[in-house]
Amino acid sequence: MTDVVTTRRRDVTRQRLLDAAAEVFAEVGLDAASVEAICERAGFTRGAFYSNFETKEELFLELAGIVSRERVAAVRTRVDELERQGAFADAATDAFSVIQKVLDIASDDRLGVLLMSEIRIHALRNAQLATAYLAQEQEMISSVAQIIADIGRTSALTFRVDAEEAARLMITVWEGASVRSAMAGVDYNEMCRRTNEEIARVAQLIIEPR
Amino acid sequence: MTDVVTTRRRDVTRQRLLDAAAEVFAEVGLDAASVEAICERAGFTRGAFYSNFETKEELFLELAGIVSRERVAAVRTRVDELERQGAFADAATDAFSVIQKVLDIASDDRLGVLLMSEIRIHALRNAQLATAYLAQEQEMISSVAQIIADIGRTSALTFRVDAEEAARLMITVWEGASVRSAMAGVDYNEMCRRTNEEIARVAQLIIEPR
Repeated sequence: MTDVVTTRRRDVTRQRLLDAAAEVFAEVGLDAASVEAICERAGFTRGAFYSNFETKEELFLELAGIVSRERVAAVRTRVDELERQGAFADAATDAFSVIQKVLDIASDDRLGVLLMSEIRIHALRNAQLATAYLAQEQEMISSVAQIIADIGRTSALTFRVDAEEAARLMITVWEGASVRSAMAGVDYNEMCRRTNEEIARVAQLIIEPR
Repeated sequence: MTDVVTTRRRDVTRQRLLDAAAEVFAEVGLDAASVEAICERAGFTRGAFYSNFETKEELFLELAGIVSRERVAAVRTRVDELERQGAFADAATDAFSVIQKVLDIASDDRLGVLLMSEIRIHALRNAQLATAYLAQEQEMISSVAQIIADIGRTSALTFRVDAEEAARLMITVWEGASVRSAMAGVDYNEMCRRTNEEIARVAQLIIEPR
């Protein structure tokens, strides 16, 4: 019982630190977001921080992982929903509008884009962080590849590249288009619209033409 | 005559500042690369700096522009060379190896990737820099679109998207693949190989299948 309580308290502490870090990061960016500022915001001591995370970068990498997994989960939920509605039965005749339906979900807001971009910069200068980031990205690619393979099975669609390559390409375009939209300084809905349009176009290229 | 000499001296000063900035940036990154450090490295006063550039970010944006224009020029030179060799006559039968030939040129080294990534981060947090960066990117897209249109004319190839969309997609994949390769910490040749492989695959998707 004590172990369960301890574990739960540890989880709550960890989550509060993650939430506080996300807030501080939003305000000042990754470099200026000190461990002290994060602890103060979360209401914890440095001791609490360092018994959960080895470094600030490790915490932000975990935040990035959460962002990634939430993205993929949103796509998975949407795809399952569309499958139940039989939307993929129409896929062969109108692939573009089916793709649009899949992508008609919340996309990264500017903060998510900023976070991922800053993680990448740090990973480019830190080999350990790079390894962890690439592993996280590979997880995301594998999850999206699974979704693509499932869509292939339930629709009449075939693809010009294998599911893993398709996933890598879609994620690369997603990241690039998100950064471009975020830079354009448009509102959230327009950000989603532009990003999804670029992703939908590359999805069309991946689908075997009939 | 005096105006010509003055202009030349200004150009030389500007170039020395750009070179110094590239060195300092390589050592400490964009944020830590102070105007003072750049001036010291170039052997100039702050006055010389500020009569050439309004801000540090403006200098780095110009460096990024130089990197972009050099990239595109390298591709253009390679394409013209291949055209003279009649390499595009084979394009319809072996598009993949023709693409590989186009891409068989020097790619961004880790420093170029770092510079572009850091510029993007700053542009995400600075509307003026964002506008300038997006304009620069649009220039690059237009140049690459021209190259793609020319390849379309001299080969039997047709494309599934228009030249501008093709260019945007290839540049997005180029950026993403370069960052991924740079993060993997592999040597320069392996970086080029991996990046070019990803670009070649998306190029294949863009080409109308026969």
